[in-house]
Amino acid sequence: MLKAMDGCILVIFGAYSDLTKRKLLPALYNLQKSGKLSNNFAVVCAGRRNKSWEEYIKDMKAAAGNHVENMDETVWIELRERIYYSKLDFNDKTGYRKLNSTCGRIDKMHNTKGNRIFYMASSASFFESITDNLKRNNMIDNKNTWQRVVIEKPFGKDKETAKGLNNKLRRYFKEKDIYRIDHYLAKEMIQNILVLRFANILFEPVWCNTYIDNVQIISAEVDGVGNRAGYYDSSGALRDMIQNHILQLLALITMEKPGIMDSAGIRKEKTRILKSIKKFKEDKSNIIVLGQYGPGYTGAKYVKGYKEEQGVPSNSRTETLAALKLEIENERWEGVPFYILTGKRLSQKTTCVIVNFKEASASLFKGNCNELENNAIIISIQPKEGVIYRFNGRKAGSENSILPVNMDYCHNCTYEKNSPESYERLLEDAAKGNSSLFTGWEEVESSWELVDSIIEFNRRNCILPFIYESGSKGLKEVEKLTAQDNRIWYGWENCNKNT
Amino acid sequence: MLKAMDGCILVIFGAYSDLTKRKLLPALYNLQKSGKLSNNFAVVCAGRRNKSWEEYIKDMKAAAGNHVENMDETVWIELRERIYYSKLDFNDKTGYRKLNSTCGRIDKMHNTKGNRIFYMASSASFFESITDNLKRNNMIDNKNTWQRVVIEKPFGKDKETAKGLNNKLRRYFKEKDIYRIDHYLAKEMIQNILVLRFANILFEPVWCNTYIDNVQIISAEVDGVGNRAGYYDSSGALRDMIQNHILQLLALITMEKPGIMDSAGIRKEKTRILKSIKKFKEDKSNIIVLGQYGPGYTGAKYVKGYKEEQGVPSNSRTETLAALKLEIENERWEGVPFYILTGKRLSQKTTCVIVNFKEASASLFKGNCNELENNAIIISIQPKEGVIYRFNGRKAGSENSILPVNMDYCHNCTYEKNSPESYERLLEDAAKGNSSLFTGWEEVESSWELVDSIIEFNRRNCILPFIYESGSKGLKEVEKLTAQDNRIWYGWENCNKNT
Repeated sequence: MLKAMDGCILVIFGAYSDLTKRKLLPALYNLQKSGKLSNNFAVVCAGRRNKSWEEYIKDMKAAAGNHVENMDETVWIELRERIYYSKLDFNDKTGYRKLNSTCGRIDKMHNTKGNRIFYMASSASFFESITDNLKRNNMIDNKNTWQRVVIEKPFGKDKETAKGLNNKLRRYFKEKDIYRIDHYLAKEMIQNILVLRFANILFEPVWCNTYIDNVQIISAEVDGVGNRAGYYDSSGALRDMIQNHILQLLALITMEKPGIMDSAGIRKEKTRILKSIKKFKEDKSNIIVLGQYGPGYTGAKYVKGYKEEQGVPSNSRTETLAALKLEIENERWEGVPFYILTGKRLSQKTTCVIVNFKEASASLFKGNCNELENNAIIISIQPKEGVIYRFNGRKAGSENSILPVNMDYCHNCTYEKNSPESYERLLEDAAKGNSSLFTGWEEVESSWELVDSIIEFNRRNCILPFIYESGSKGLKEVEKLTAQDNRIWYGWENCNKNT
Repeated sequence: MLKAMDGCILVIFGAYSDLTKRKLLPALYNLQKSGKLSNNFAVVCAGRRNKSWEEYIKDMKAAAGNHVENMDETVWIELRERIYYSKLDFNDKTGYRKLNSTCGRIDKMHNTKGNRIFYMASSASFFESITDNLKRNNMIDNKNTWQRVVIEKPFGKDKETAKGLNNKLRRYFKEKDIYRIDHYLAKEMIQNILVLRFANILFEPVWCNTYIDNVQIISAEVDGVGNRAGYYDSSGALRDMIQNHILQLLALITMEKPGIMDSAGIRKEKTRILKSIKKFKEDKSNIIVLGQYGPGYTGAKYVKGYKEEQGVPSNSRTETLAALKLEIENERWEGVPFYILTGKRLSQKTTCVIVNFKEASASLFKGNCNELENNAIIISIQPKEGVIYRFNGRKAGSENSILPVNMDYCHNCTYEKNSPESYERLLEDAAKGNSSLFTGWEEVESSWELVDSIIEFNRRNCILPFIYESGSKGLKEVEKLTAQDNRIWYGWENCNKNT
């Protein structure tokens, strides 16, 4: 895909899916614009609708145009020359023969050499049928070529269904050719976490329970469930956010240093740490809080409660917010609680990680008028990207007053214009065979083991979501989690603050 | 001096000295302005000139007016009400009786209770006579009152003369009542060093030879010798800057954590580390560089060379620049070189400390296109005040490129308006009996032992200053010091850079 890379065809199943319109086409447009697409790259969009190429291109131009800034006509014309539409009923065996011959024809035109990225942008219910038919038509595992499959979440709804789905994929694809997308992993500051930790001599020596008191991971959204109620109501925050994004983030923050920093090395260590998270076996009901948004205000705008959203049953008990305390059972992290929160319809959109260090011995500064605050490293992932180190300094002009001050590194201040969107990066990586930003099966499996234990724990303990007002700035129910441990909740409102 | 502190009289010997006009009166004015002077505080300025109070006040108003911003008439009127002029020939025994009775009278008017700060703002040659006469007239060591003496550098010109001077002071004053001023110690960021190190949990674990590769201390001036040639030519950079300011700074950076953070605890640890600096006994002539400025340009302005300055002998061999490598012989710092530089007539005025950490293991990031740079903590003392942490981060949008980026804390950005000048702080501290920003005798003695060994080393090895152009931006001769150790010289030009 990158110039000087192997040629290939990106085959998108779900030509009219939301994902294709909102993410994939805009990403392709941006890659075209930045000159990253080689001549030996083409896109085949397969969908059920009866459309001509002209019609499809027109529809996609309109759709993608909503998601890129000032669409440049020249760029779009260049891009559309490599896009093909192929009518396909995903369950119709005969259709795949036509798809295969279309691809063969394109191979000759674009010199794409039989290489394929099969992108599952359709409903998960079609995955099995699609892979079966690809196999049946000899479209997988061909000599001197490669075929990769890219798959979006949800990757199952518990360990069992995930295993079932995985087994189906593994019948025809090798693990190394399965690209499970977690678009969070492509965010700039998430990719930066391992560099921060391992390319600097100052972090690793203090990155353990001798110095760290607790870690908080916060992912707050302003949006509600939108038009995803059908999927979301049977999923909820634990499956939709924690099983993948949040646990991946936690793994990057806590994993051991790999022997070598490649996909395999990183996956191995992530899996190891995910397996070390304590399962929810004992019944201590004070370590998990579920919430569901009620009506309220997003800014000045009135918004409905979750139960009033279209497609949500009026007696739904699905959680749109989950906060919990996790523990990692290894030497490095013993005794360090990880407080995590994810929630919809909160007052601010933000994702951040707060690493709270233990307090320095305050007895040394007896004359100090204030209590010494603990040091903290705050990694902001979105919308602000950067790192803050909060430390103690003298208050100027005072004799002995010590106050917390911030050192600030802003990543998107310097690089804003160059930061590629997650999907650009991920498509590029899939084409190049770089799977380090995709999730390995063992990680998926370990994450489900934990989340299954949480869901079972909730069932056993009858933990039901409390109702919170949409647009909430803080929630007492959540803050209890840290308060009962005599710790302070950081709060999503603080994540976007500048120094 | 502070409201609610003991009342006292500040007796300044040297009513017309440069120090009085440029530093002490402006500091008093600012203290008056910020409301820090209590009613029980008065100033007696003693000098040889035959002046009336009115004349003296007029002269001082003009002089101080040059050194404060927009002098406020009301503030000046309030201040002058507590200023007295006393004619005194410092060698004339009889004059002190009058000074004593003047002070006694003021005690009653201002309720200053017999407490005195004797400030030696005159030439050092008078110190002995002044203290003898103070003693003779029972002006020292009086019951239920306190008398302190404040003394400026130079405190001797080698260990022997310093000891002689100290013995004279100690005949009448206790060590705790002798305030040896090092105005560098009152700078905000220098006071911040111990807070940084000991009120934060993240610095101390890495503050040792396991993590630190080398430390550089840079103090560059733009000014030349000015009108101080008489003193300076017999002193030079080693005695004028390194013996006091630079070694004090080094001590704060390297000392062990005191049991308690008070004057005595800090002095003890500073003394201990100063004694641990390796003396210059062996003859390795490549660890010291002396320089003397020649003619050149300060900005666009042509400036004379040192030998052409008024009062400087045309064959002077006095160094106006000294750069050297120091080593500390203890467990924490074994193997860590300290490269220090001080020089006049360089291209920028700056004082900063660069703590260079060892490199992180680069082998982990084999795909990285650049070599990993080492982490560094840069403490800027003047004119910029702040801390920068230089670390490695991912270059946005790249797959594997790692680049150094900065986290920045700017102290005088937040506090600029409140930062008191050094002399305000020091006068306040002397009045309150807080000696932590003054230098103890043992520190003076240990510093001279080191500097004496350097001067003797230079003599033995015939090290003479090379001539450098005024306004130099960098000097190969200096950079050799680090280059021969395969290390990089930081350079004074970099200290003031922002992120």
